Amino acid sequence: MIYLDHAASTPIADPVLEEMMPYLKENYGNPSSIHRFGRITTKALDLARKRIADLIGASPNEILFTSGGTESNNTALFGTMNQNKVKTLITTSIEHDAILEPCKKLEQLGHNVIYLPVDSAGMIDVENLESLLSDQIGLVSIMFANNEVGTIQPIKQIAQLCKKYSIPFHTDAVQAVGKIPVDVQELGVDLMSISSHKINGPKGIGALYIRHGVTLNPFLLGGGQENGMRSGTENVANIVGFGKACQIAQENLQSNNHTLQSLRNHLVKRVSNDLTHTTMNGHKEMRLPNNAHFTFLGVNGEDLIIKLDEHGIAASTGSACSVKTQKASHVLMAMGFSHEQITGSLRLTVGISNTISEIDQTVDILKKVVAELRAVSPFKAKYGF
Amino acid sequence: MIYLDHAASTPIADPVLEEMMPYLKENYGNPSSIHRFGRITTKALDLARKRIADLIGASPNEILFTSGGTESNNTALFGTMNQNKVKTLITTSIEHDAILEPCKKLEQLGHNVIYLPVDSAGMIDVENLESLLSDQIGLVSIMFANNEVGTIQPIKQIAQLCKKYSIPFHTDAVQAVGKIPVDVQELGVDLMSISSHKINGPKGIGALYIRHGVTLNPFLLGGGQENGMRSGTENVANIVGFGKACQIAQENLQSNNHTLQSLRNHLVKRVSNDLTHTTMNGHKEMRLPNNAHFTFLGVNGEDLIIKLDEHGIAASTGSACSVKTQKASHVLMAMGFSHEQITGSLRLTVGISNTISEIDQTVDILKKVVAELRAVSPFKAKYGF
Repeated sequence: MIYLDHAASTPIADPVLEEMMPYLKENYGNPSSIHRFGRITTKALDLARKRIADLIGASPNEILFTSGGTESNNTALFGTMNQNKVKTLITTSIEHDAILEPCKKLEQLGHNVIYLPVDSAGMIDVENLESLLSDQIGLVSIMFANNEVGTIQPIKQIAQLCKKYSIPFHTDAVQAVGKIPVDVQELGVDLMSISSHKINGPKGIGALYIRHGVTLNPFLLGGGQENGMRSGTENVANIVGFGKACQIAQENLQSNNHTLQSLRNHLVKRVSNDLTHTTMNGHKEMRLPNNAHFTFLGVNGEDLIIKLDEHGIAASTGSACSVKTQKASHVLMAMGFSHEQITGSLRLTVGISNTISEIDQTVDILKKVVAELRAVSPFKAKYGF
Repeated sequence: MIYLDHAASTPIADPVLEEMMPYLKENYGNPSSIHRFGRITTKALDLARKRIADLIGASPNEILFTSGGTESNNTALFGTMNQNKVKTLITTSIEHDAILEPCKKLEQLGHNVIYLPVDSAGMIDVENLESLLSDQIGLVSIMFANNEVGTIQPIKQIAQLCKKYSIPFHTDAVQAVGKIPVDVQELGVDLMSISSHKINGPKGIGALYIRHGVTLNPFLLGGGQENGMRSGTENVANIVGFGKACQIAQENLQSNNHTLQSLRNHLVKRVSNDLTHTTMNGHKEMRLPNNAHFTFLGVNGEDLIIKLDEHGIAASTGSACSVKTQKASHVLMAMGFSHEQITGSLRLTVGISNTISEIDQTVDILKKVVAELRAVSPFKAKYGF
C-alpha cells in the first residue's frame, strides 16, 4: 500500500512508540496519586509538556493537554466566548468542522459569528478583517493552514491586528505544527490548537496553547487536573508519545520540510505533465509542504479514491471527517469552485516515509484510472477526452 | 512495590496491550477515511464497541466513546440538562468531582441541583429520593459505587423510581463496571459512565451508555464522529484496548470478584485483629469487592501514605483526584465523620494481581508505621496509645 493521506492521520514513529511503552506497561500510576507510581507519571507529563512547548516557542505552563484537536478547538471557542456577554466571533468560511460546528452552537446560544470569505486560492483578505474589528469582537479564530487545500493564512499579520484591537486570537494549527516553523512568540497568537496524530504521534491526544494572561473557562469539569483547566485522568502514554513526536518534529523540521516539499513537488510536476484537464488547487506559494490538491475534470472524486484504493493507494477527496457524510466540500465552495470542479477533486498528502518511487507509481496508476473514469464520463463529449 | 491503589488506576493487562499493538503500529488509518487503512480501524472500533456493550448488557449502538469517565459524566449532565428549559437535577453529596463540578456549572447556568444526603455508611435514602421526584426534575444522577468508601447504591430501585416518573437516570459506574455484575437492561439505567483505566485497560478512553430513545445534546462538536454525538478522530488503539479489557472483565467477572474479595477480606481481618483504635468505613455488605477504607485515629492520613510509600506500598487517603488539592474528603464529611476521623483515613484498593503475601506484608508495615505516627501524635494522651 502507498499511503498518501497524511493529513487524515500519520503512523506513529518508532521512537515515539518506544518512549510510550513503559507507560503502557509498568508506569501505570495515576499522576494525581502522591505515591511513587504517581510521581513517575507526573514527571513524564512534565517532560512531554516541555517538549510540546519547545516546538512552538511556548512555556510549559502555557500548554493544556486535551483529547485532540477537536477538544482544543471546542475549549478555545466555548471557553473564550462563554465567559463574555453576548459578543461576536470572527472566523472563516473554510475552517474545519471542529470550528464551524462550535460556531453554530455559539450562534444558538445568542452570540454572533462572522464567516470571512476567501479568494479562489483559499486566502482571506486581511484588510476586510481589519474593517470588522471592534470592541464587540470576543474572539478571532482563523485556521493556520487549511486541511483540504493546504493554504496558509497570514497568521502574523492577523495576530498583530488582533493585538491592536485587544482581541484574543485563536488559530487551529493542527495541520501546520510540525510541518512548518510555528513560533507563538514570533507570531503573537494567543490560543493555538495542535494535535498529536498529525505529526507521527498517537491518536486521542492534543493540546491547546494558552498565552499567559489569556483567560478562558474550562471545558471539561471534574477532578481539577491541568490546574483546573481540563479535568480527567491524564492520558499518560499518549501524552508521552505526543511529547516525543514534538521533539522529533522540532529536531527534523528543516529536513522534513525539505523531504515533504521534494515529494510533493515531484508529484505536482508529474501530474501536470502527464494528465490533461487538471488543475492544482490552493495557493501556489503559501501552502503546506506536504499537500497537493487537484481537480480532474470529468471525474468523480469518490470513484477515483475507490479505484486508487483498489490499486493500493490511500487518498482522500478532502477532509477525512466529511468523507463519510458525502457533503460537498464547504472549503471548495467558499473558494468559488463549481459543483463539477468540487466533484473531481483529490487530496494527496505526503509523509516523510513516502518515496519518489511511490510517487511515480501513484502517478502511473492515477493516469490509468483517470483515463478509465473519463472514458465513461458524462462529460466525455464536452471535454473531448 | 506493592500497589494498593487500583481505584486510582490499574495496570494494562498483557493481552490488552497485545491487542492494541497493531493499532499503535501498522493500522494507523483514520476511521473516517474510506480507503483500506480507514476500513481496518473502523472494523476495530466495531469490535470494541460490541465487547463494551456485551459487558454491560447493552447494544453496540448504545455505546458512545469518550476520552474517559470525566467526559462521559460531563456529556451526560450537560447533554441532558442543557436541552431542557430550566430544570432540577438530583444527585448525591458523595459524587466524584466529575459530577459535582458540572453540577456547580449547571447551577451557574440557572438550573437547580438537589444534593441528596447519605447515612454514615454512605447510603442514600430511596424514600427521600422518591419524595423529591416530579416533572420538574430533568435528570437524576447517582453514582453506582463510591470511589472512596466503596458503598454501592440501590441502583435498580432508583432506576425503577425514575422510570415511574419518566425521568432519565444516569449513573457514574466508573468504579463498579468490571468488578461486580452490571447489566443496564436488568437495572434499567438510561445513561451510564464507564472508564477503561479502572479495569486494566489504557487511560484516556471511556464510554457513555445511552439507552435507545434517550436524547441528549452532543458535548464535543466537530467532524461528526460517533453519529454526530462525539466529534474528534477516534482514539483507535485505546478503544481497542478498552474493548479487550471489557471482554476479559466479562469472562473473568466471577473469579475476579472472588479473588478481590478474598484479598480485601483478608486485609480487613488482619487490620481489625492487629490494629487498635481503627474503624472500617463504608457499608458492610453493599460495597465494592476490592475496596477497604479505614480510619486510624490519631494518625494523619497524608503522613501515613508518605510513610507507606517509603516502605514500598502505594496507597491513598481517598480520591486520587483530590489528594493534590488537600481538600478534606467531601464524601466522609457527608457521611458525618469528624475532622479527626477524616484526617486519619486510608483507602486500600486491591487488584487481581495482588497476593495474600503482599497483603500480609502491607499489614505488618502498616502496624509499624501507625505505631510510629501514634507515638508522636497530639492525640497520644487522649487515646492512651
